[in-house]
Amino acid sequence: MADGDVRIGHEKLHALGVRALTAVGVPDEHAWMAADVLVTSDLRGIESHGFARFAEFYVGRTRAGLVNPKPNVRVVEDAPAAATIDGDSGLGFVGGTIGMRHAIEKAQATGVGIVTVRNSTHYGAASPYAMLALSNNMIGISMTTCALLVAPPGGAARTYGPNAMAVAAPSGPGEAPFVLDMATAVVPSGKLEIARRRGQSVPAGWAIDTQGQPIEPDPAPFFQSGLLLPLGGDALHGAWKGFGLGVMIDVLTSALSGGLSSAEVPAPGASHFLGALRIDAFTTLESFHDRMKTMRSVMRAAPRLPEAPPLTFAGEPEQAKEDDYRQHGVPYPPAVLASLRTMCEDLGLEYDLE
Amino acid sequence: MADGDVRIGHEKLHALGVRALTAVGVPDEHAWMAADVLVTSDLRGIESHGFARFAEFYVGRTRAGLVNPKPNVRVVEDAPAAATIDGDSGLGFVGGTIGMRHAIEKAQATGVGIVTVRNSTHYGAASPYAMLALSNNMIGISMTTCALLVAPPGGAARTYGPNAMAVAAPSGPGEAPFVLDMATAVVPSGKLEIARRRGQSVPAGWAIDTQGQPIEPDPAPFFQSGLLLPLGGDALHGAWKGFGLGVMIDVLTSALSGGLSSAEVPAPGASHFLGALRIDAFTTLESFHDRMKTMRSVMRAAPRLPEAPPLTFAGEPEQAKEDDYRQHGVPYPPAVLASLRTMCEDLGLEYDLE
Repeated sequence: MADGDVRIGHEKLHALGVRALTAVGVPDEHAWMAADVLVTSDLRGIESHGFARFAEFYVGRTRAGLVNPKPNVRVVEDAPAAATIDGDSGLGFVGGTIGMRHAIEKAQATGVGIVTVRNSTHYGAASPYAMLALSNNMIGISMTTCALLVAPPGGAARTYGPNAMAVAAPSGPGEAPFVLDMATAVVPSGKLEIARRRGQSVPAGWAIDTQGQPIEPDPAPFFQSGLLLPLGGDALHGAWKGFGLGVMIDVLTSALSGGLSSAEVPAPGASHFLGALRIDAFTTLESFHDRMKTMRSVMRAAPRLPEAPPLTFAGEPEQAKEDDYRQHGVPYPPAVLASLRTMCEDLGLEYDLE
Repeated sequence: MADGDVRIGHEKLHALGVRALTAVGVPDEHAWMAADVLVTSDLRGIESHGFARFAEFYVGRTRAGLVNPKPNVRVVEDAPAAATIDGDSGLGFVGGTIGMRHAIEKAQATGVGIVTVRNSTHYGAASPYAMLALSNNMIGISMTTCALLVAPPGGAARTYGPNAMAVAAPSGPGEAPFVLDMATAVVPSGKLEIARRRGQSVPAGWAIDTQGQPIEPDPAPFFQSGLLLPLGGDALHGAWKGFGLGVMIDVLTSALSGGLSSAEVPAPGASHFLGALRIDAFTTLESFHDRMKTMRSVMRAAPRLPEAPPLTFAGEPEQAKEDDYRQHGVPYPPAVLASLRTMCEDLGLEYDLE
């Protein structure tokens, strides 16, 4: 939490989210799906993907006609463990949530459910969908295409998206669930946005310009035509892997659903992949929890470098934030609250957060 | 192909593989599975995972009692789209191949099949299993734990494996299939072995010593107690993502199968995850091929840096090697052929490669 941030109870944000989306024509049920995902993101400290973008990305794009407020989200292919959903250009929150619920239903019946979603739009962070599997004692998988921002190895233009993936697995009592949520670029563009906002420098290895020169220490040139680098960074350090993961996500989301790839679709278009694996179709839940616990204990006990912090697994820092923010409110920068206040004025809604 | 390499027809290697494994007690059917995987690896230029390791890893470990030559590989959990197999400490090639065949059968019926394998051993490269899905018009997924070699961020010891994953997707006529095959460390240890053998230097960012100092330019210190770094390399450049992907693979292979994780199991123990997605359960095959082709065309047409080679997708360099090696033989260094000659002498087999 930064200086000047204001703590807001997450229920208030949720209610505002629902009111604002219904005000721009989104059905109540869909607005709830959106608010659920946004609140989960903010509670877990994924601040770039929560209400910070709400006014511009979701309300703004819906009002501008870039998002269909009342989509006919329908299953277009259906098999016992597989399905494809057409998102009808609605909010990605809706296609993502319906897709994940459908995957969970299939996994109840067959052990596994995989659902792809085409013709959707930006669905926020990937992990809130994967995490829907946790309370069903399932492993959740969520992938999405993202807006055109990354150069493949040797590339001189924004060529594909920093396509993101999340995997969530329950850990049993007393342990945070394992929740990996990552873009396939070295960093998402949000990291450069935060550095610019705070006047901080960025290191070489995050982004390059169209001549191939590193953008550092000033992030400003990124916002003209800068290029994110694939995870791995350069050819010697595995950039083909980050690039390969990004294309893999495009294959599993857009090609498999029949949608447009991150290289082709104009913002905010997106395709998604939602998967659920029912743990007791593979092993007992007790064994799974035990294996998760033992693996992490063994790894935590391994020697650490002097001054290195304790080992943390994906999902642990986010769980600590969630525990804090649920109790004490989510910290928001004044600029975010100002954007929500302006949005309320524009929509004729009461602003009641502070 | 390096100076001094000798080209050998892949059928000869396959036959030798089958003869050697049956000589150490492996049933004919299992020996064929092993030889199929090894030949596929060598044909695609994954030389670190083919016959270069055959004498030591597979024949040697079987003779030493570390691998069960006649495993009772059996399904221990079974649901319509999910299963777990116990590999009974047999060759990983056997558990991996049976697991993938089972996943493909399930995907024929339900659209998706996911099979985990516990109590297995090193299964070579990941991609040959994923590629078994291609001729069935499916996307194949293959993951495995690997031997303890990687330090997590801040770690000072070998703490988990450079756990590997592969995803294979068909591309339609005239295009190489998409085949991503990657360890989740910056580089696999084989890259350091090759540098040592050839007297080449290695860059910082591949491995560190137990004090956290980079191992460069001489790779020799790695082979005492050096540590591979997770993809991403350091904290500023996304090492938590490489670490997270490695743990994700342990979750999906060992925890989900009820097997030991890469942090716990002694070599050559391993767990696997095999998945098959039937494309026409999600979209038409024609649409999938079209989407794969268009995505790649758009990305290939994007601007490149001066002197950058043409953009290649995962699987394209390997396909070019396979086309060459199938026709003209697979190039092997004399040292590999010598190891196979010695093995033949030890086993009382005729050496007929040259």
